[in-house]
Amino acid sequence: MIYADNAATTKLAGEAFEAMRPFLLEEYANPSQPYSFSRPAKKALAEARATISACIGAAPEEIFFTSGGTESDNWALKGSAMVNGAQGTIITTAFEHHAVLHSCAALEQSGRHIAYLTPTEEGYITPQHLQEKLGADTFLVSVMLANNELGTIQPIKELCALTHSKGALFHTDAVQAIGHVPVDVHDLGVDLLAASAHKFNGPKGIGFLYRRKGTKLLPFADGGAQEAGMRAGTENVAAIVGMAAALKANHEAMRENAQHVAALEQKLVALLDAAGIAYRRNGGAKKLPGLLSLSFPGADGEAILHRLDLRGICVSTGSACNSKSTEISHVLKAINLQESYARGTIRISLGKDNSEEDVTIIAQELKKIFKG
Amino acid sequence: MIYADNAATTKLAGEAFEAMRPFLLEEYANPSQPYSFSRPAKKALAEARATISACIGAAPEEIFFTSGGTESDNWALKGSAMVNGAQGTIITTAFEHHAVLHSCAALEQSGRHIAYLTPTEEGYITPQHLQEKLGADTFLVSVMLANNELGTIQPIKELCALTHSKGALFHTDAVQAIGHVPVDVHDLGVDLLAASAHKFNGPKGIGFLYRRKGTKLLPFADGGAQEAGMRAGTENVAAIVGMAAALKANHEAMRENAQHVAALEQKLVALLDAAGIAYRRNGGAKKLPGLLSLSFPGADGEAILHRLDLRGICVSTGSACNSKSTEISHVLKAINLQESYARGTIRISLGKDNSEEDVTIIAQELKKIFKG
Repeated sequence: MIYADNAATTKLAGEAFEAMRPFLLEEYANPSQPYSFSRPAKKALAEARATISACIGAAPEEIFFTSGGTESDNWALKGSAMVNGAQGTIITTAFEHHAVLHSCAALEQSGRHIAYLTPTEEGYITPQHLQEKLGADTFLVSVMLANNELGTIQPIKELCALTHSKGALFHTDAVQAIGHVPVDVHDLGVDLLAASAHKFNGPKGIGFLYRRKGTKLLPFADGGAQEAGMRAGTENVAAIVGMAAALKANHEAMRENAQHVAALEQKLVALLDAAGIAYRRNGGAKKLPGLLSLSFPGADGEAILHRLDLRGICVSTGSACNSKSTEISHVLKAINLQESYARGTIRISLGKDNSEEDVTIIAQELKKIFKG
Repeated sequence: MIYADNAATTKLAGEAFEAMRPFLLEEYANPSQPYSFSRPAKKALAEARATISACIGAAPEEIFFTSGGTESDNWALKGSAMVNGAQGTIITTAFEHHAVLHSCAALEQSGRHIAYLTPTEEGYITPQHLQEKLGADTFLVSVMLANNELGTIQPIKELCALTHSKGALFHTDAVQAIGHVPVDVHDLGVDLLAASAHKFNGPKGIGFLYRRKGTKLLPFADGGAQEAGMRAGTENVAAIVGMAAALKANHEAMRENAQHVAALEQKLVALLDAAGIAYRRNGGAKKLPGLLSLSFPGADGEAILHRLDLRGICVSTGSACNSKSTEISHVLKAINLQESYARGTIRISLGKDNSEEDVTIIAQELKKIFKG
């Protein structure tokens, strides 16, 4: 099998599994208990928090463990809105992940106003876009760090500075970026940031929310005193430890991994060009390494996916979270891609485990599809 | 080590770990994707849902996977309240888990009215209690199935019938009961039920919400189309599979396990009696097997816990979720336990892995503490 859908999920890192194992087996204590048996679990939580915070330039107490990126995004948006009562405007973008868009829709239902920024045809939100919409009643701006279908990396630092100049908060859905490109919360200036472990070779069902010290946010899940009273529920110790191990490993090898997948990406594109296949690359130059959104005019993306699947190759048409839908993805609509291109779009997302042979085979199979 | 804090968390069952392993390692696909590699994960989710639903007499489509009991309770309460707008009354009890109590407090902050039922001194909510509070504006009643500090099992079937006769919904926090005593959602008649895997030898960070078909409930986390659009986020496949394996194992051995821990409990009590230790057992006859709430008048529960810890014995003073607090637990306050007893309270919760030797040692150590 050639797995080229690393933007949907990634293989658990070996070091992550090994880090998890003792907390799944022997060290099963509830970390909130005061007896000695809970100490290793408690210590592991503290170490995981320190590791993760160090990877993004945060303080440990600014990291809150959640059940994943979706929860982190829901919490950031709804938790901020609840602080702000039923008033005010949230500005977001038309090509966010549905975790953000549908949270905004739910907030709209309960009376808040949501304004949507349209990206450029290359897949970028510009400070000018934001400037036009920012108003006195804006309390939160939410722009993703890297788009999950295009890979385009947004100018978060500039957008955030502009947002702060108007006194609003800034949240970024960094689910697709964390562990793959450098992210420093202080450099970016964001107040809230969402991440998901299974996108960076950690386990599924775990993620985190970064909250800058002092940022007002209501808890999303109420109950026990875990996570400084901000996120109740017995801590998912093994998964948290696995997430930290995976992020650490990816962080240490980030430059190397990025160079590796960027080289594979270049090779794939060169092979497609050499084969004389007609296609368009979506997105612009500033993007996640290894993520390619390719549109084959007049083709059917789903049919391509299934043809590749028969050859043991995993790619995606759009985001995994909505892959049951056969509509054109909201991301491709947002960048105003022509319908004949949009319908023929696939996403190939290469990961650190992919090889030159993998991309050679992918190119060969695409050639068979388009050139017979 | 003698682990006698099974009400706080339990050891992961061997069959659960073995069931999880392939989904942590090889079968890492995102189950929402349409290619072949996702099929084993998708199939495993369907099988887990079927297994879990069968254990509680539900239909598979009535089971929604969550990140644990706290999320399930938050969702049941807040999701029902959102359907009902900003109006109406929720009736709950004074000795619920904080996942319920603090969710209710959050709803009270946003304008809903919450009424609290006081349990009897034995730790039971009676239909008469409920009858007195039920009003035309009650839209939801939430009563736990088994209290986590006392183990007392509430008359859910009667409370539920009464609630339905007034046209309100019934939710039960069954976190402490599922996997330990028989629970049939149709026999009970509940509309919503919360459960957590790590309380029945499953992994931490996973649970479920049962929602009777047709029960109106808003999603708690918005985003992707997972869980029939009701609970967004990439499915925690390994943990879900582990939860199902653990529940199945506990379900199949339920009678045997219950008899085993009940016998251990009896032995422990007999040994304490024989030692002439002055103590009071809290709670009444209808209770979870193996859970003992013991009050030693004039003693300090925390000091007992630490003395036992030095001997390698894990017990609890109250619920693990609030173990940092040194206040008397809200449960013991609710049953109106005298302060000198309340301060000297420990919870011993025996599990299927405990032995006769374990309880003999626990009794010996308590004798040393109280009789020197």
